[in-house]
Amino acid sequence: MKGTLWLIPNTLDDGDPLQSLPAPVIEQVRLLRYFIVENEKNARRFLVRVGMKALLEEIEFGLLNEHTRAQELEPLMLPILKGTDAGILSESGCPGVADPGADLIRQAHSSGIRVKPMIGPSSIIMSVMAGGLNGQKFVFHGYLPPKPPDRIKKIREIENRSKLNQETQVFIEAPYRNRQMLTDLINTLSPDTILSISADLTTDEELIKTARVWEWTKFDTDLNKRLVVFSFLKT
Amino acid sequence: MKGTLWLIPNTLDDGDPLQSLPAPVIEQVRLLRYFIVENEKNARRFLVRVGMKALLEEIEFGLLNEHTRAQELEPLMLPILKGTDAGILSESGCPGVADPGADLIRQAHSSGIRVKPMIGPSSIIMSVMAGGLNGQKFVFHGYLPPKPPDRIKKIREIENRSKLNQETQVFIEAPYRNRQMLTDLINTLSPDTILSISADLTTDEELIKTARVWEWTKFDTDLNKRLVVFSFLKT
Repeated sequence: MKGTLWLIPNTLDDGDPLQSLPAPVIEQVRLLRYFIVENEKNARRFLVRVGMKALLEEIEFGLLNEHTRAQELEPLMLPILKGTDAGILSESGCPGVADPGADLIRQAHSSGIRVKPMIGPSSIIMSVMAGGLNGQKFVFHGYLPPKPPDRIKKIREIENRSKLNQETQVFIEAPYRNRQMLTDLINTLSPDTILSISADLTTDEELIKTARVWEWTKFDTDLNKRLVVFSFLKT
Repeated sequence: MKGTLWLIPNTLDDGDPLQSLPAPVIEQVRLLRYFIVENEKNARRFLVRVGMKALLEEIEFGLLNEHTRAQELEPLMLPILKGTDAGILSESGCPGVADPGADLIRQAHSSGIRVKPMIGPSSIIMSVMAGGLNGQKFVFHGYLPPKPPDRIKKIREIENRSKLNQETQVFIEAPYRNRQMLTDLINTLSPDTILSISADLTTDEELIKTARVWEWTKFDTDLNKRLVVFSFLKT
């Protein structure tokens, strides 16, 4: 019998996982001895936080990140095909959502492996919930283009899309580029577009703010090096 | 000092909330005496499940659903403006996401009320995670048009969009129309489009299946009256 592929959300902060995950998720993690992870060092840290320090020597890690090639997926799957349960663990939030994992999960479906998503934090869904923009229709773009002219063009393009479909536009940016992103958004979007920022969700520094673009010009918000989800809606 | 607006995800099943929610969410719910809910009877049931049966008489409920008009939001906010903490509680999953709540949350931001999203289940994000389609880019459409010709047209339109943007298309349907929706998807989408179905997530009847459309024609999947999230990707 084949193993199950458990999809394990990671906490968004460095605190006690019991604060962010339902108890059965922690219990399930403690039963696993094979983890497919983005970064082994950080994964070990998470396992220590869930109380598995004494078990670390028994645990097998497989690496799955943006450098993983298609032909490396099969060896990662092999233990599961042979009957071992595995956990995909993200660096932060949900595996396969704005994070590696989707290709492996799709291959698990093709191979008849049971895929079992677990409940936990997602900064994307939490920002949609807390922003108060349209939660009936929204699109997540991942990262916008990094080069300024392409980025400005993209912001204009998705603002049109937002107006046309009444769709909330959600995206992320590398922490060191957040400051510039906020400036570009304020300078590019219509003054009456509603812009929402969720920064450092679930941590002590959590900031959630929704206001019209013209109001944002009055705020002094420093997003530098913070983990931010941006969203906007043109009504 | 104003109260805080807590956004409380509800379980996707009828089971023990401690199985689906982190312990601090339950603790916070138990402190609240004012809840803004879609349906009071179901909200009472949830509060009984979190162990608040003896407190029900002390609890004030405000009603917020698809019939709530804009001018009714202010009275709902009044206790919070006066200093009472409130919880928005959805029927299932996250408030404000494919559910009422967003207008009130936006108004809370304008009124300087702290909005605090809590961690819990979202069938949308769980289906994106478990489907193994593109989790770097996805769009949630809510409901597609109910009338057959409009629906077929919409399915074609979003399949094009999926191909163009490599964006996973996610949507829901009323449980009694799921069977017809699956038939329409199989008959309308390209045979090589990847279709994923997540049904009754987190319950004992959970079904998660991802396959090419041509493969779906061979399955005998009855989705009638189940809670389903549909998604597809045209690669």
